Amino acid sequence: MLMTMTHLHLLMSLQLVGIAAFSVSGALVAGERQMDWFGVMVLGIIVAVGGGTLRDFLLDAPVFWIAQSWYVAVAAAAALATIPVARWAQKARRPVAIADAVGLAVFVALGTRKALEMDTSAFVAVIMGVVTGIAGGVIRDVLANRTPIILKKEVYALAALTGAILYVFADGYGVDPAFSLWSSIAAVLVIRLLAIFYDWSIPTLKIDPDEGG
Amino acid sequence: MLMTMTHLHLLMSLQLVGIAAFSVSGALVAGERQMDWFGVMVLGIIVAVGGGTLRDFLLDAPVFWIAQSWYVAVAAAAALATIPVARWAQKARRPVAIADAVGLAVFVALGTRKALEMDTSAFVAVIMGVVTGIAGGVIRDVLANRTPIILKKEVYALAALTGAILYVFADGYGVDPAFSLWSSIAAVLVIRLLAIFYDWSIPTLKIDPDEGG
Amino acid sequence: MLMTMTHLHLLMSLQLVGIAAFSVSGALVAGERQMDWFGVMVLGIIVAVGGGTLRDFLLDAPVFWIAQSWYVAVAAAAALATIPVARWAQKARRPVAIADAVGLAVFVALGTRKALEMDTSAFVAVIMGVVTGIAGGVIRDVLANRTPIILKKEVYALAALTGAILYVFADGYGVDPAFSLWSSIAAVLVIRLLAIFYDWSIPTLKIDPDEGG
Repeated sequence: MLMTMTHLHLLMSLQLVGIAAFSVSGALVAGERQMDWFGVMVLGIIVAVGGGTLRDFLLDAPVFWIAQSWYVAVAAAAALATIPVARWAQKARRPVAIADAVGLAVFVALGTRKALEMDTSAFVAVIMGVVTGIAGGVIRDVLANRTPIILKKEVYALAALTGAILYVFADGYGVDPAFSLWSSIAAVLVIRLLAIFYDWSIPTLKIDPDEGG
Repeated sequence: MLMTMTHLHLLMSLQLVGIAAFSVSGALVAGERQMDWFGVMVLGIIVAVGGGTLRDFLLDAPVFWIAQSWYVAVAAAAALATIPVARWAQKARRPVAIADAVGLAVFVALGTRKALEMDTSAFVAVIMGVVTGIAGGVIRDVLANRTPIILKKEVYALAALTGAILYVFADGYGVDPAFSLWSSIAAVLVIRLLAIFYDWSIPTLKIDPDEGG
Repeated sequence: MLMTMTHLHLLMSLQLVGIAAFSVSGALVAGERQMDWFGVMVLGIIVAVGGGTLRDFLLDAPVFWIAQSWYVAVAAAAALATIPVARWAQKARRPVAIADAVGLAVFVALGTRKALEMDTSAFVAVIMGVVTGIAGGVIRDVLANRTPIILKKEVYALAALTGAILYVFADGYGVDPAFSLWSSIAAVLVIRLLAIFYDWSIPTLKIDPDEGG
């Protein structure tokens, strides 16, 4: 590990922001579905750890939060802390989206790195980066009984894909690991922020369900 | 294992009640969605084994029913047996809910115990107990295309949480294993029955989805 | 492995047809839900690899596409290729259903074989065959926020079950492995094609959700 302590502290701070932001997004969706406080906590935890959990299932690695359960505790605390301020947080869409972008960026980069460290192919590492970043949000929407929003609009999954590809290329060219990590994080973050502020989207496929014969 | 044969026989009987009850709840929901008989069987099996399966994925343990496939067979039989009596069972909400409470109690206690036997932290063991008890019902509702009811109302997941915490504390204080197990089962069962009979619930978070800006 | 090269080539060709057909079905459902192009690709991949992935989780085997990532690439390409021709493909229900039947047949047989090769019981091998064949389609419908269609109508899961049982019996009686495989594939395919052309279905269970008391 070539990263300095400063890097590690910054990375940990961003991870905490990301865990909290993902958990808050789960808590808010739970509130939209009138879940009870326990459901709010469960949904917050699932959004925060869902992506990394699926990645570890796919890589046949020990699930990360079994040994690092502070991760789950932070997510639970963030979800419960959302309850008294939920109406405010619901209206503060932009700050919540920015915090969520931080989470996405960190999780994609760390997911890609974990796969590469387990000697997967570059192609699989990209998939793992994307899965780590987006699967929690997909599971959130499935549990809230709605079509996953990040498969429908905004440049969300595409930002994840770009960041993961950038990491894999940098790593493949022997770039310093810390630099690969931070450029990947920066790329996801910049793309997401631009997408949020300029309402970017990519084309959708629209088929009338009743059109077939 | 300090449990006597009587304990083991009782535990096995309660497990059978639980498997059947969980499977019936899956079969009834399948009927509400006009699934065919095969879908009824599939949903019954998933509710009965889903929680333990997810727990084993998370613990990186061999999935329990791969070596004990009678578990799946009992669930399949219970689901198919529900078909001719479905209208009656649908109306008999209270007996079905009581049998379901037995299942929840046994699955939570056994899930917690399995995690502790694999030397997880107490915190993770509690999560595994809750997952074992509730994940099958959550998957059932996802497949039936509705928001998971146990995240919305009734003291269901909270009963599971209480039972799992009680187990972990008893175990931590060196209490006799059989006593830890049975007090955990009793706690879940009592809380659930009180919740059923007195319509207990915990507060919900309600946010208007259209309120944000 | 007693199969000749001709068998292997044919099997590989059918697998490619199946991967593409499953991916197309995911892409079309994504289009019905107005997903963006990335969502279309994700849904296509998930339908194509979902069943085998869940099977490998359950068997505690390395997930097949981690080492064979061409599988994911083929699915991604098929999903993206669907976008410009989606309206046509949506109307061409019968050709798509026939290609899907090929996929189901191959995946069921290969899933059953993989379980038997890992020395599971015959009962578990049948479950793994069915899971491999149908789980991708179930996940597709969950992500599209609808009740899984293959649990509701058409003889779909039942065709999978029949093929898996046939494989296990043939294997149990010491039949030549290639013959077991091909008779299983043929059985699923014939049943599915008959179901498609003659609108076969099995009885459904219908319960009024509001009937209970």
